[in-house]
Amino acid sequence: MRSTKTLLLTLLLPSLVFAASSDRQSVEPVKIIEQASNINEVQAELGKMLFFDPRLSSSNYISCNSCHNLATGGVDNLKSSVGHKWVLGPINSPTVLNSELNFVQFWDGRAKDLQEQAAGPIENPKEMAFTHNLAVDTISTIPQYRAKFKQAYGSETITMTELTHAIAEFEKTLRTPNSRFDQWLMGDDSAITSTELAGYNTFKAKGCTACHNGSLLGGNMYQKMGIVKKYITDNEEVGRYAVTKNESDKFVFKVPTLRNIELTYPYFHDGAEWDLTQAVITMSDIQLGLPITQEEAESITAFLKTLTGEIPQVTLPHLPPSTIETPRPTVN
Amino acid sequence: MRSTKTLLLTLLLPSLVFAASSDRQSVEPVKIIEQASNINEVQAELGKMLFFDPRLSSSNYISCNSCHNLATGGVDNLKSSVGHKWVLGPINSPTVLNSELNFVQFWDGRAKDLQEQAAGPIENPKEMAFTHNLAVDTISTIPQYRAKFKQAYGSETITMTELTHAIAEFEKTLRTPNSRFDQWLMGDDSAITSTELAGYNTFKAKGCTACHNGSLLGGNMYQKMGIVKKYITDNEEVGRYAVTKNESDKFVFKVPTLRNIELTYPYFHDGAEWDLTQAVITMSDIQLGLPITQEEAESITAFLKTLTGEIPQVTLPHLPPSTIETPRPTVN
Repeated sequence: MRSTKTLLLTLLLPSLVFAASSDRQSVEPVKIIEQASNINEVQAELGKMLFFDPRLSSSNYISCNSCHNLATGGVDNLKSSVGHKWVLGPINSPTVLNSELNFVQFWDGRAKDLQEQAAGPIENPKEMAFTHNLAVDTISTIPQYRAKFKQAYGSETITMTELTHAIAEFEKTLRTPNSRFDQWLMGDDSAITSTELAGYNTFKAKGCTACHNGSLLGGNMYQKMGIVKKYITDNEEVGRYAVTKNESDKFVFKVPTLRNIELTYPYFHDGAEWDLTQAVITMSDIQLGLPITQEEAESITAFLKTLTGEIPQVTLPHLPPSTIETPRPTVN
Repeated sequence: MRSTKTLLLTLLLPSLVFAASSDRQSVEPVKIIEQASNINEVQAELGKMLFFDPRLSSSNYISCNSCHNLATGGVDNLKSSVGHKWVLGPINSPTVLNSELNFVQFWDGRAKDLQEQAAGPIENPKEMAFTHNLAVDTISTIPQYRAKFKQAYGSETITMTELTHAIAEFEKTLRTPNSRFDQWLMGDDSAITSTELAGYNTFKAKGCTACHNGSLLGGNMYQKMGIVKKYITDNEEVGRYAVTKNESDKFVFKVPTLRNIELTYPYFHDGAEWDLTQAVITMSDIQLGLPITQEEAESITAFLKTLTGEIPQVTLPHLPPSTIETPRPTVN
């Protein structure tokens, strides 16, 4: 009798889970993170090498991974990033995890996708401080790279197009599926605690999901930092205004993802807030104009911590050595 | 008939290889790199986390891996390393690969082993610019680290002793066995070409093995940089003299390993030489006082490139997040 029950349950469970899954995802404003798919493995493998290669910077000291560190949630956990000659960047580094799912890239949306984004830091004097030509020249002097580009793109002739495409292809692999919250969304009631569920309900009731929704809980719209009350900061970034020059776009930024938020402190575009609960309180105050108790904020924080997914296991690439033709680093 | 021959060969081959192996290692001045053994896996896993953790630096930007990059031969491929606030270090970063096998650590031998070495950069103002107390305090605020220390060392109370022991235990895993040259040493005649073998014979005939011998081809004695002729450099390091204050120890350094030398450019303690063949010519000139032809130097270079072993496959750790109690980074 017992084994028949078990058998029935085993047979029924997948369809039950599927039903619950469909139901919750169709009614909730938050969607799961899907596994990466349609990845070109050869291009992604090359892109991983480039992502970790400090020879894309003038100093040969800074790689993509320096500021989007895959050991620390795809960020550097600094207010703003350390760049060439220790110059500090103007804005907090967004996480590279799940970044493909953003509707645009950078806080101000000035790049339409990851490929366009990847070209930016290489030539930014406050970041990698290189030039696109020098980056391409550097990589082109290394025979193992030429062979990899040939394999990935059919030609040994390297341009920024393939170089940034490969980096983007690697970055597309950096999804964090299967967080406890996603397990709950897919129908597993036991995946989150009642406190965490209460936090999610408060998150929705307060209106946080007006901006933080979808699979990223963010990353799909622009919003002003300080809708109801002015946000006080010494950070000079003007947001979307820098791109559009529309007065109404001042201090308008892409809504950041809340996925893996527990790992991606400090918070806000200026990296001013290190305490997640305090960040929730500030958001409620300046974005929604709503009072929020410490208890409510802590409950939302508990929910937010269920958004930490399975972080990709990344094996460090073995980068091929430079040759006598490779341009030497310019450290100073 | 054919299959009987094959069978016989298959049966005999292991003993033949073993015989050849024993023979070559006993007669040659170079020994193979053995696989790491007697590793405490729990301590090494913790040590890997610490090796990659930038929170051991004042800025939270620099980790052990910044200068001993496991994507690039365990070095940073810079003349000297970039440290806190972009201060450049006084000397070229030695590789962490196989570093356990050095008879002492640092160019001037001021640390007796890897554990003692690991403590140095953390508090060096030109490197990680932290203090030991702050490093311990930082790590101690992170519950996942406390649990790992408890698991590895039996107590949640962290001191520099366990912290540096764990890093050293991880570094001990970083061996590069099975280079083509080691395969040859173990009896596989086809592992290196006749040109490479000729290079090895020249390397011995010129006397390079007087200092570059053993499993590291170096790392087991001190030697003056410029025995026969003064070495001209603008580097101010005085070598072993800094430790002993003996006049005769001026410009005396630990002989560096030649293992994976193809990956660990630029060469010499001052990182002045980027061209391996030119480094060979300079060594012959100032250390041995011997003329050497370009052809001989290129042949030695070909041999040296057979010393690149199997580089460890290192999966990036996922570092646990800081807490509200964790000291914040001091970037400037």
